[in-house]
Amino acid sequence: MSVLLEFSMSPLDKGESVGDYVARSLEIIDKSGVNYRLNPMGTVLEGDWDTVFGVVRKCYERMSQDCSRISVSIKVDARKNQENRLEAKVASVEKRLGKPLRKS
Amino acid sequence: MSVLLEFSMSPLDKGESVGDYVARSLEIIDKSGVNYRLNPMGTVLEGDWDTVFGVVRKCYERMSQDCSRISVSIKVDARKNQENRLEAKVASVEKRLGKPLRKS
Amino acid sequence: MSVLLEFSMSPLDKGESVGDYVARSLEIIDKSGVNYRLNPMGTVLEGDWDTVFGVVRKCYERMSQDCSRISVSIKVDARKNQENRLEAKVASVEKRLGKPLRKS
Amino acid sequence: MSVLLEFSMSPLDKGESVGDYVARSLEIIDKSGVNYRLNPMGTVLEGDWDTVFGVVRKCYERMSQDCSRISVSIKVDARKNQENRLEAKVASVEKRLGKPLRKS
Repeated sequence: MSVLLEFSMSPLDKGESVGDYVARSLEIIDKSGVNYRLNPMGTVLEGDWDTVFGVVRKCYERMSQDCSRISVSIKVDARKNQENRLEAKVASVEKRLGKPLRKS
Repeated sequence: MSVLLEFSMSPLDKGESVGDYVARSLEIIDKSGVNYRLNPMGTVLEGDWDTVFGVVRKCYERMSQDCSRISVSIKVDARKNQENRLEAKVASVEKRLGKPLRKS
Repeated sequence: MSVLLEFSMSPLDKGESVGDYVARSLEIIDKSGVNYRLNPMGTVLEGDWDTVFGVVRKCYERMSQDCSRISVSIKVDARKNQENRLEAKVASVEKRLGKPLRKS
Repeated sequence: MSVLLEFSMSPLDKGESVGDYVARSLEIIDKSGVNYRLNPMGTVLEGDWDTVFGVVRKCYERMSQDCSRISVSIKVDARKNQENRLEAKVASVEKRLGKPLRKS
């Protein structure tokens, strides 16, 4: 199974600017060695179930050190007999449409 | 931290009727001993991080035995110094409004 | 199409206790006449697309009057040739398992 | 309010390969004139509430023409006094960390 996991994680008790907390999570993600892509609404990880959920857990442990209420949104797309889907899914849509689309 | 986790999990390769697969997950949840509430769009679990994510993982392992593509949606609300939130959150809204609301 | 829509909506700039804002949304939902069920992580509405999204929009308009940053999570399950799914989906799982489950 | 909306929409009754249906949605999005970014798990739109939800509705109308069961996941981040957040949010995280991150 290739597990694609997108997640976002925010404190509710730190006011409307939560960029510092998001940056701490991205530092953890970037150092984890897990393949990922950041987008404006979350980060997509690819790996097996325990690997990608392990990264989310690390981000949660760090955030729970100094945040009282934490909201997490996670979406998983797991598929057998496929890999490198971080790039393949977007490329497949562009190929079907025969033109490049806006990515981020 | 009290971790409330709501999730839904469905196969994409079994046609539009996926009730048998949902029932298998609920059997796992109900036997897990973790406190939960089923609603029309998912199941809400309460416990610590590893406990509630452990239940989701068991449902995933079962489903991946005979499903080729699996979609999972998870939402977490973690909060310090609170407990019994499966009942307390709904009760708190009703108390604020001074009337009962429709639950399921 | 029967459209089941579950949503939750919270301000990010009001601290960790957002119950007053949730209660305002439930007041709007309860008065809308749309069939709904409240659970510990959100509210499930049933109706056609424009009806259920119209209720979400009203809650958003009210919240945006005095909140600077708003987070909304929405999940839709739309299905042809079905109705009364707020009750039918949960009942169907219980029937398959042959026992009552915990609801809220 | 700048409304960032990420969504994904899939039929449940068409088997595990749903790329053709996703491509039809991206065709609608790309032609809508609304600013967007595609990622491996969804598409992020930016605009006001009615504009971005109008695009989601168009995708739903197209998909409901030949699909019997449709699943939609939507996440909204609305914020006052900000704009161009499709690029600004990612750039802000990179600036805080002082290094480029993997995007898609």
